[in-house]
Amino acid sequence: MRFSPLVEQLMDAFRVLPGVGPKTAQRMAMHLLERERPGGQRLAAVIQQAIEEVGYCQRCRTLTEADICVLCESSRRDDSLLCVVESPADQLAIEEAGGFHGRYFVLHGHLSPLDGIGPDAIGLDLLESLIAEGNIREVVLATNPTVEGEATAHFIAAQLSHYGVSFSRLAYGVPMGGELEYVDGGTLSRAFNGRQPFASD
Amino acid sequence: MRFSPLVEQLMDAFRVLPGVGPKTAQRMAMHLLERERPGGQRLAAVIQQAIEEVGYCQRCRTLTEADICVLCESSRRDDSLLCVVESPADQLAIEEAGGFHGRYFVLHGHLSPLDGIGPDAIGLDLLESLIAEGNIREVVLATNPTVEGEATAHFIAAQLSHYGVSFSRLAYGVPMGGELEYVDGGTLSRAFNGRQPFASD
Ligand SMILES: [Zn+2]
Ligand SMILES: [Zn+2]
Repeated sequence: MRFSPLVEQLMDAFRVLPGVGPKTAQRMAMHLLERERPGGQRLAAVIQQAIEEVGYCQRCRTLTEADICVLCESSRRDDSLLCVVESPADQLAIEEAGGFHGRYFVLHGHLSPLDGIGPDAIGLDLLESLIAEGNIREVVLATNPTVEGEATAHFIAAQLSHYGVSFSRLAYGVPMGGELEYVDGGTLSRAFNGRQPFASD
Repeated sequence: MRFSPLVEQLMDAFRVLPGVGPKTAQRMAMHLLERERPGGQRLAAVIQQAIEEVGYCQRCRTLTEADICVLCESSRRDDSLLCVVESPADQLAIEEAGGFHGRYFVLHGHLSPLDGIGPDAIGLDLLESLIAEGNIREVVLATNPTVEGEATAHFIAAQLSHYGVSFSRLAYGVPMGGELEYVDGGTLSRAFNGRQPFASD
């Protein structure tokens, strides 16, 4: 069965969202049209406005409609620590984990020469100017534990090594609460190499 | 961590979609802003247009932006069979199951006197006028197998009995591929009462 062209278009359009297949897209379209027209109208307006107005913070490049984001404006963060992440989603995950109270820098991706994503695209100049201000002591390179994330971390550390800041990388190891049986071999051998002394008391 | 007000609004707005909790809404907002701005713009435009233009088919009340839907316009359906469903989603499920080649009528809900949903709200007048045309032989009352769906089916059959059409209801029973152990007692006793002769050859 085909619905009318506009209803079909609506179902198709929802598939742009992550994790939304044909069935879920159908359910979303039906739900909006049958029960949530005001909410749908609001959703459309907010998507439109956000796409037009949300850009990058001029300091840390996170997503914001302001020139400078709330976190960069905050006086309650540690200026000596800077955490470099690939995406605002990674930044959010680290914030929600708690424990880090420094500042962030968002690359919006990783180096990928074959795709034409070079140092400019990941904002290296801006990152360098932040470090050049002289307040940062340590840069945590929290790019993804992937080949590209590793390469990007190495490139950044090499390019900015002459500022005398120290660079660090998140620890590799077995995830908390996971079962060893299901941890991949690469992770497991990294966890072995990085094993820590264990006090029995 | 809070993102900027507009990014937070976008995350909130996605929660109007069925099955979308805070985490999924975050992922959707990030995905659109980071990687899918053209797709997001298209989604916003299509939601807006669909909410403005999609109404009910003047014959069967399914969702369509046309006066009369594709299925009502089709000359390849059996005019003597009419299937009454609570929602366009139910209609879609029946069409996708295959096997039914008649026409449909969509109630957009069920009778619910306490919520002020009476015969007018489910389009009983329009349903009556379709039956009064005289081509329909059988009306399949495919409302949901719930107390409200049952009551709605009974009400419709009682109100329209004088047209001499026959009314039917979908069979109750154990779902195909299910395990008896997990079938609820009400369904199981219905399936017992409706048991069918079984030929062993
Ligand atoms: Zn910022
Ligand atoms: Zn129709």
